[in-house]
Amino acid sequence: MPRGQFPDWLRKRLQIQIHMEKYKVTFYPDNKTVEVEKGKTILSAAISTGVYINSSCGGDGVCGRCKVILRSGQVISQPAGRITLEERKRGVYLACLATIHSDLEVEVPAESRIDLEKLSPQDLDLRLKGIYSDSEDVESAVSVLGEEIFVHSPLATKLYLELPLPDLEDKISDLERLYRQIRRIQDIPIMQTGLANIRRLGELFRSADWKITVTLGKRNGTTEIVLVEPGDTSHKNFGLCFDIGTTTIAGQLVDLNSKRVLGTKATYNKQASFGSDIITRIIYAQEQDGLEKLHHAVIDGMNQMIQELIQEHKIDLNDVNCILCAGNTTMVHLLLRVEPTYIRRAPYVPTANFVPTIRAAEAGIKINPRGLLSCVPGVSSYVGGDVSAGVLSCGLSDLEDLGILIDIGTNGEIVLGNRDFLISASASAGPAFEGSGVSCGMRASRGAIQRLKITPGDFKVSYNTIGETKPLGICGCGYIDIIAQMLRVGLLDKNGKINLIKHPRIRDSADGREFIVAFKNECAISADIVISEDDIENIKRSKAAIYSAASSLVKHMNLDFAEIKKIFIAGGFGSYLDIDNAINIGLLPDLERSRFIFVGNSSLAGARQILLSYEAMKKADEIARKITYFELSVEPGYMDEYIAALFFPHTDLNRFPSIKI
Amino acid sequence: MPRGQFPDWLRKRLQIQIHMEKYKVTFYPDNKTVEVEKGKTILSAAISTGVYINSSCGGDGVCGRCKVILRSGQVISQPAGRITLEERKRGVYLACLATIHSDLEVEVPAESRIDLEKLSPQDLDLRLKGIYSDSEDVESAVSVLGEEIFVHSPLATKLYLELPLPDLEDKISDLERLYRQIRRIQDIPIMQTGLANIRRLGELFRSADWKITVTLGKRNGTTEIVLVEPGDTSHKNFGLCFDIGTTTIAGQLVDLNSKRVLGTKATYNKQASFGSDIITRIIYAQEQDGLEKLHHAVIDGMNQMIQELIQEHKIDLNDVNCILCAGNTTMVHLLLRVEPTYIRRAPYVPTANFVPTIRAAEAGIKINPRGLLSCVPGVSSYVGGDVSAGVLSCGLSDLEDLGILIDIGTNGEIVLGNRDFLISASASAGPAFEGSGVSCGMRASRGAIQRLKITPGDFKVSYNTIGETKPLGICGCGYIDIIAQMLRVGLLDKNGKINLIKHPRIRDSADGREFIVAFKNECAISADIVISEDDIENIKRSKAAIYSAASSLVKHMNLDFAEIKKIFIAGGFGSYLDIDNAINIGLLPDLERSRFIFVGNSSLAGARQILLSYEAMKKADEIARKITYFELSVEPGYMDEYIAALFFPHTDLNRFPSIKI
Repeated sequence: MPRGQFPDWLRKRLQIQIHMEKYKVTFYPDNKTVEVEKGKTILSAAISTGVYINSSCGGDGVCGRCKVILRSGQVISQPAGRITLEERKRGVYLACLATIHSDLEVEVPAESRIDLEKLSPQDLDLRLKGIYSDSEDVESAVSVLGEEIFVHSPLATKLYLELPLPDLEDKISDLERLYRQIRRIQDIPIMQTGLANIRRLGELFRSADWKITVTLGKRNGTTEIVLVEPGDTSHKNFGLCFDIGTTTIAGQLVDLNSKRVLGTKATYNKQASFGSDIITRIIYAQEQDGLEKLHHAVIDGMNQMIQELIQEHKIDLNDVNCILCAGNTTMVHLLLRVEPTYIRRAPYVPTANFVPTIRAAEAGIKINPRGLLSCVPGVSSYVGGDVSAGVLSCGLSDLEDLGILIDIGTNGEIVLGNRDFLISASASAGPAFEGSGVSCGMRASRGAIQRLKITPGDFKVSYNTIGETKPLGICGCGYIDIIAQMLRVGLLDKNGKINLIKHPRIRDSADGREFIVAFKNECAISADIVISEDDIENIKRSKAAIYSAASSLVKHMNLDFAEIKKIFIAGGFGSYLDIDNAINIGLLPDLERSRFIFVGNSSLAGARQILLSYEAMKKADEIARKITYFELSVEPGYMDEYIAALFFPHTDLNRFPSIKI
Repeated sequence: MPRGQFPDWLRKRLQIQIHMEKYKVTFYPDNKTVEVEKGKTILSAAISTGVYINSSCGGDGVCGRCKVILRSGQVISQPAGRITLEERKRGVYLACLATIHSDLEVEVPAESRIDLEKLSPQDLDLRLKGIYSDSEDVESAVSVLGEEIFVHSPLATKLYLELPLPDLEDKISDLERLYRQIRRIQDIPIMQTGLANIRRLGELFRSADWKITVTLGKRNGTTEIVLVEPGDTSHKNFGLCFDIGTTTIAGQLVDLNSKRVLGTKATYNKQASFGSDIITRIIYAQEQDGLEKLHHAVIDGMNQMIQELIQEHKIDLNDVNCILCAGNTTMVHLLLRVEPTYIRRAPYVPTANFVPTIRAAEAGIKINPRGLLSCVPGVSSYVGGDVSAGVLSCGLSDLEDLGILIDIGTNGEIVLGNRDFLISASASAGPAFEGSGVSCGMRASRGAIQRLKITPGDFKVSYNTIGETKPLGICGCGYIDIIAQMLRVGLLDKNGKINLIKHPRIRDSADGREFIVAFKNECAISADIVISEDDIENIKRSKAAIYSAASSLVKHMNLDFAEIKKIFIAGGFGSYLDIDNAINIGLLPDLERSRFIFVGNSSLAGARQILLSYEAMKKADEIARKITYFELSVEPGYMDEYIAALFFPHTDLNRFPSIKI
């Protein structure tokens, strides 16, 4: 990823210092001790020993979430506006800024912890609503486009066979007998069988009276005999599809025979405690055991979800025969424990975009020990299989008219095209829209301000929070609403500077001028919830990154937004997003509202289609090969586009005719 | 294997009794104790605890090699002629006949042990001479037939590649870059790569400056990237070929680039201590840990040979990338640790004839951990890959004229045909020709009488032993000579009965009448070396089994031996065999001597051809599919043929016109 695309906060973090002296740090009440090099931060020490401290800004000293209390020892820390004088006296530090200069004893208060293990069911529900639509919604979005349904041919198929008994006239071996019978039903040129299965055949065939069920898996242009079981188990054939996002992992358990989704789960990606964005994680992967920890963070979460899904639906783990994963390129590398290092080094080449189908156990995924794991092919380092899956599921590649898919996430992904061409770009939007890297930001879960109105004149603020609780912070949608409203009532100028209006909600702070969204007494936390000019700047850069990426793509193809008939909006805040406000701040192009289609978690929907159809897998393969990756940083006009978008809504107001400010 | 084909001694052994009481047996001087069920033999107890007792007759109480001394405890034993009265007083028993009826202490004297670990270099040389001709001999035999040389395309190929460096214009991933470069050189539709290799690519490519060597393996219709190494290692590409015989294992280390054989080794198959023939081993495989022990016996021997080969030739084990094995169907099952049980149960169906190529490590073979193991495809339970390999190497399947391949071993295998057809039969010859199951028999190694003449009238005997030492016993070739000579000088009638001639060399014994071949004072053992009527009967059945199998095949095809232009003789005693004597006793058909071609270890030669050429592999595949297996037991005329052959040379003397008796 070229340097120009990194915000400052990220660039700062990339500088890693090496010190040789080592100190012991003990965390309480965990009572966990770790030895770390002098000069490392308390946050990084906590990460190494598995103490999960909240760090939504990614360790920039911005969010103030990682407060810890120093019981003994010496640290050096930059001044942090988030720490009050009283707190400083009590020995409170930001774990991300305090560097270690002696043995330490550190207390981690409850409010600074990430409880990744357990989300309340309500929180999960809320989160789920946010990250994807129900499959029915996606299906209907898809059907709008008149896309054909793919032929049903799942990644793993079961065949019940009654083998003809051998006799003196028909003496071919057990394995060849099995192959022959399968080939009487299906035309399979290359069939493969592992030694483990061959070893079982003799006894199995005879004790099962030659009535057996074979599980066939599609594996890299060949068909593998994944499993041979006695009797007829053909009705028990289940699979999983997963969208592995940087922030959230969503998975579904699917009956591969009936195509029915039996259950859906989502969980935070536990990797978040090692850094909230891809780049930070790639850097972390280079630390000792870093890759291993990131790998385990993702598979442990997936395995837990799988366990819960099969228990809830009373399914035997051995009947789960395959798993289909979509994720961005880094997530796929980390899932497979492949070094992601080169993704972030020029010329930004990943180890693999087309990953062969492997045994799930090889990646540490616990399904049937011989079950298969397949990943949706990706396009490049910054356009992964989640994008291919998204294009597949929204039907972009089958459109006659022009369409554009905008997946809003930490890494914003945009695909423009139709059945004739597909071109994609990746915009490093930063985690602001996911509530990270902004002072009061939070993920779209319970307590997040998600809808907001400001009365003109008196600037009275009314808001809704997710779960209708007292506010804890602001999520991405909330920020869009706040900025749109501040613009509308004249609190904010086009540059994103707060106007010099004398009002109790406006004040100067260590972080610059800020607007108080909710006063301390209304909140669930013991501080005002604010939006600062720094936050607004952050959001402005994020929305500019996404908008300018989309407009550059359109321009590059000598097109105009007006020619685009379908705008598919995918991603984490799909169902909360106020489309008018998103246009008002200049995140989305100013087009007829009817052209916008929310597709929710299009990546998961695509993964499910591929799980259920080899035809869809081939199509995804085709899509991944067809997508041209457009490197924004080398496009001469891109920086101009980006800079022009660093206004609300845009420098060129002609592009936003429907907005009346 | 149909019942009719078993000699009595084998049938007896198939009866297994089950007892539940258990006793402890301790062997000295090993000081090894094992708990076994009441009623088991001391021999079987010894086998379970890894004490290797000689048992060349396979546990029938015939050979008298398994003498042990009972120190304490109670056994029940049939009377055995091999035990003298004096020995009986000292507590000597045959381990194969003495069943356990209390806790025991047993001493195993040195002369009753098999020293499988170490053969002297001379013995090995002698043994090698016996089991196969030099590759040059085989090549010349092959070239006689005008067979084309197969295109050089070994099981594992190395390619040195200088990958084009990625840049912003050429950003495909590492794995796809590798695939693209390989495909620029070779047309490979389906390429596979394991996760372990993918995980290494990123770092490896960059640290090697994109100059790498890839090892490509042919695997079940696809090509696998077996290995990726930095730099140019393409000159270090070695493979192994093995013939895994029931009695002997022979292996060669081959430079896959130059096709040169670097070294050859042979060793006894350590499985021999669990029984000398296939059937006994299949039965043993059903005992607890039996399969595991048989599997380890073969792979331990192979691994030791591999170690010696690479050390002698200063080759790194990691540069040995593949191994190609030919063996009979049971040997292949045991190599792969696949239950061989069903091979001996009607309708005699093995688990696999066409075994997929696997990673050698999966079978416990120690070469490069990612190296491949491939087995030559077999035809049926009793016609294995060794036969396919043999047909390939002698060129039978390319002949215009008719030819026959006769592989003389414990399991005699016969293939008749030419380029139009191939038909095979398997004859359970028994181990007599390998010096087993006969009273003074031994394998073709140092001390074995291999050539013999008897002067008419005074019956003076002159003989040669292998290694020119004092005789220890008689090997297969020796028996052929002895019987032919006894016939010639009138000592033996056509039925195999010793004529009632008064002579110091002829006497009656507990085993029936016998002829003293060498008196005790000439021998290295403290007993006369004799041939008994029982031995002659055994050899007669063996030779009848092989001859009648061949003649039945010929008859079945409405042919006559005279029409067969090439007779390829393969097997353990190829180079010792006196062709005239073999015809005289009726083992081989009476044809012009010039038609006989010794091909030595044709199975090893074929395995080597396949190791070096994928074309040869495809040909072997074709041969295995083309060979019709002719089940002798269901052929109406076979029993008549067999019975007619139970004479020296044959009931029908018209078939042996050149013999003057």
